[in-house]
Amino acid sequence: MKATRYEGDKTFTVIEKEIQAPAANEVRIKVAFVGVCGTDVHIYHGMMDKRVSIPVTIGHEMSGTIDAVGDGVTDYTIGDKVVVRPLDDRKVKASDKGFNHICEELKFIGIDSEGAMQQYWNVPTFVLHKLKESTDLKLAALIEPLSVATHDVRRSGLVKGETAVVLGGGPIGLLVAMVAKEVGAQVIISEVNPNRIAKAKELGFDAVSPIDTDLVEYVKSKTENRRADVVFEVAGVQPALDVMCEVAGIRGRILMVAIHGVKKEVDLFKFFWKELSLIGARVYEKEDYEKAIELITANELPFEQMITDVQPLSNIQQVFENIDKNPEGLKVLMDCQL
Amino acid sequence: MKATRYEGDKTFTVIEKEIQAPAANEVRIKVAFVGVCGTDVHIYHGMMDKRVSIPVTIGHEMSGTIDAVGDGVTDYTIGDKVVVRPLDDRKVKASDKGFNHICEELKFIGIDSEGAMQQYWNVPTFVLHKLKESTDLKLAALIEPLSVATHDVRRSGLVKGETAVVLGGGPIGLLVAMVAKEVGAQVIISEVNPNRIAKAKELGFDAVSPIDTDLVEYVKSKTENRRADVVFEVAGVQPALDVMCEVAGIRGRILMVAIHGVKKEVDLFKFFWKELSLIGARVYEKEDYEKAIELITANELPFEQMITDVQPLSNIQQVFENIDKNPEGLKVLMDCQL
Repeated sequence: MKATRYEGDKTFTVIEKEIQAPAANEVRIKVAFVGVCGTDVHIYHGMMDKRVSIPVTIGHEMSGTIDAVGDGVTDYTIGDKVVVRPLDDRKVKASDKGFNHICEELKFIGIDSEGAMQQYWNVPTFVLHKLKESTDLKLAALIEPLSVATHDVRRSGLVKGETAVVLGGGPIGLLVAMVAKEVGAQVIISEVNPNRIAKAKELGFDAVSPIDTDLVEYVKSKTENRRADVVFEVAGVQPALDVMCEVAGIRGRILMVAIHGVKKEVDLFKFFWKELSLIGARVYEKEDYEKAIELITANELPFEQMITDVQPLSNIQQVFENIDKNPEGLKVLMDCQL
Repeated sequence: MKATRYEGDKTFTVIEKEIQAPAANEVRIKVAFVGVCGTDVHIYHGMMDKRVSIPVTIGHEMSGTIDAVGDGVTDYTIGDKVVVRPLDDRKVKASDKGFNHICEELKFIGIDSEGAMQQYWNVPTFVLHKLKESTDLKLAALIEPLSVATHDVRRSGLVKGETAVVLGGGPIGLLVAMVAKEVGAQVIISEVNPNRIAKAKELGFDAVSPIDTDLVEYVKSKTENRRADVVFEVAGVQPALDVMCEVAGIRGRILMVAIHGVKKEVDLFKFFWKELSLIGARVYEKEDYEKAIELITANELPFEQMITDVQPLSNIQQVFENIDKNPEGLKVLMDCQL
């Protein structure tokens, strides 16, 4: 079988490898599609060389079919369509208070251990979610990033009739916007890139640039001055941090989805004055995966339009080089059987 | 009657004034005691000269007895012991979403309009809370600041068995610590001033200095590594902002009680990583006052020890001068009938 390996120095190789029999309580998945995540691009750029064990097969946004089952596996059979929730929480401790998905010793499968960018992948059954036979495996590769969005929206407590402002219209921002809209909220996307604004509009969203529109006044005009009930900070830049406290209304909830690697300035006075909440959200829990699977299965949201390219796995080097050249693309999938 | 006036330039005067009959739906209170709040000290220092209408009678931490009732007043009679919840929310709008206590057009009585540092005070009945006949009016002057604490603790969702770390052991920090302990939480106070640490210990608290104790390790040692479930940031300084994200455990809630006048650096990565929440809390709602009244009426917490001085109202100038000279004192009350 073909397996890809990140070798460091912006280089992927494609190697030939023996297909392995699954160990006890493991299954072998014939991988269908793997999406490229922003984190994968960070790894490619060498930003995570200290964390990954080079050479390593990465990839965690995947779909596939059970190809073989190990001893003791009773819940899965050959032919089952599945996705992996790539969280290895086997070292959970009492001090993690039951929040296994963010436990202190969490290993992220596909970063801290071998991932999905190969033709066959052996994984323990506890990471699996079964899909319906009718599920489109291409769309199913979106379940992992969509679960980030269902987790963010669930953590926000967003309900029908509220207004959500999404700061940043990249792949996660758009998925958050879709889930927020599905909840029944009014959704406004703030994005600076004109191509991404156009894409957001194509997907049916109210999207504005905070460069040529006063975002706070715009949101006030759309909410009878209530401003946003929920703000999703997905942009990761200082102007987003500045505007999030302004655009949030009284008792507004701000979801911290973006990863800020260094300390940033925040207007804490506004937190006091309007009794705002800032809520951190990281990866997903089981129920967020279930919600994402339900949405992908129903296929009533414009998921198809999120996939802007599908390439053979064997083109992996070119795929990553192209992502650098075309940062406005949304989700690129690799077809792992090609 | 005697009334005090802030005249600007660190100056209070005491004037003679006619006692007024209460207007319709108002009562006249014979003021018993008024506490000096940090905000009053800010006003004395001229920090709020743009907001207050000089000359003005300030004061909002008070207790008293109904002395006369205006037309239409049916719920109060002469002799009732009362406190005032000094929030004038008469200009509440739909966009305030029912959060009247922090509504956009809120007027704070005793800052934005005439306050309690006088012998008789006329107020509308909607600001009143009735006390039991048995209530000590000296302790009752603590109800307003105690309501800040009951509000903070209620907003935090703190429950029995959890651990709360209070950053800052001044009057509000100590009241927060008392309410947190009353809920059944383990409470640890972090304070840099040795005299305040001694006072906190006198009040029965576990109190440490983050200068000579590694606060995070200390809290870990007291929580089987869980760290704090709730952190109350009452210190208002950068080191408190730095440590709050460290000392909070997984899914920890951080209450922003301090007022940060300028933007400050916050470790947002920790919010993402541990799924922390930052929760703003300002003043109080009706139920927070009711809880504070219940606690003062029961008088089972060391409230008496919070009152470090009682002075005649006519000494107001000296009272404010002494607070500047003795910043370690806790609550100073003025006896308004002297």
